[in-house]
Amino acid sequence: MVKQYTERLDAVFGALADPTRRAMLRELAAQPRTVGELAAPFEISLAGASKHIQVLERAGLVQREVQGRVHTCRLDARPLHAGAEWLRHYERFWNRKLDVLEAILKADDAMQKAAKKAVEPAPKPTRKSRTPRRKP
Amino acid sequence: MVKQYTERLDAVFGALADPTRRAMLRELAAQPRTVGELAAPFEISLAGASKHIQVLERAGLVQREVQGRVHTCRLDARPLHAGAEWLRHYERFWNRKLDVLEAILKADDAMQKAAKKAVEPAPKPTRKSRTPRRKP
Repeated sequence: MVKQYTERLDAVFGALADPTRRAMLRELAAQPRTVGELAAPFEISLAGASKHIQVLERAGLVQREVQGRVHTCRLDARPLHAGAEWLRHYERFWNRKLDVLEAILKADDAMQKAAKKAVEPAPKPTRKSRTPRRKP
Repeated sequence: MVKQYTERLDAVFGALADPTRRAMLRELAAQPRTVGELAAPFEISLAGASKHIQVLERAGLVQREVQGRVHTCRLDARPLHAGAEWLRHYERFWNRKLDVLEAILKADDAMQKAAKKAVEPAPKPTRKSRTPRRKP
């Protein structure tokens, strides 16, 4: 089960590590396409496109339907969910800068409150003034 | 700018497409580690571990600090954000099953309302009854 999950993640992230394959998934998100249609926007041969599609199929991201000579590809985005879940655990790290900013603001706020408390008029001040008055 | 973003995504997804590198990131999420500490849990040589760490460095996911002979690695999770954002666009597809269910429930609700309206008594019906009354 764990091995299956690990291999699925390897395949999904590997499939996404190429701009042509990511662009193919974007195309398929709009509607199913034939292999020819998927190859068309890129400067690659049908054989080259087919190799990319095979990588996407192995990752479970593309389902291929064969009708005679026409191969129609459909997106199956469900395996992406595992990838997104994996990344979700690291969200707190890229949000850390915001956490640090929040901590600074909180500390600043606490210091302001403490300072305000310190300057509040007390009935009998015990501190000496910085500029001592001359004695008459 | 677009090229930079594309190359960053290639590097990040490529770095994540390996179980050893994902495990190293998990280790670094807990605390910084030396190259030796990162290699220890895996049955790989220091040189093998170093290659994986280089892939993580190229993806911007690891910062290496050199002090004499000690190389300390720290996690920089920020590049993962781009990967998570890319995946977020596809959430609606793996949520599609829920959308279909929602659509069925809405359609069902609309049909029930229409049926209720159809059986309500109208003061002066203008439509002809399906079973015409006999003329006296």
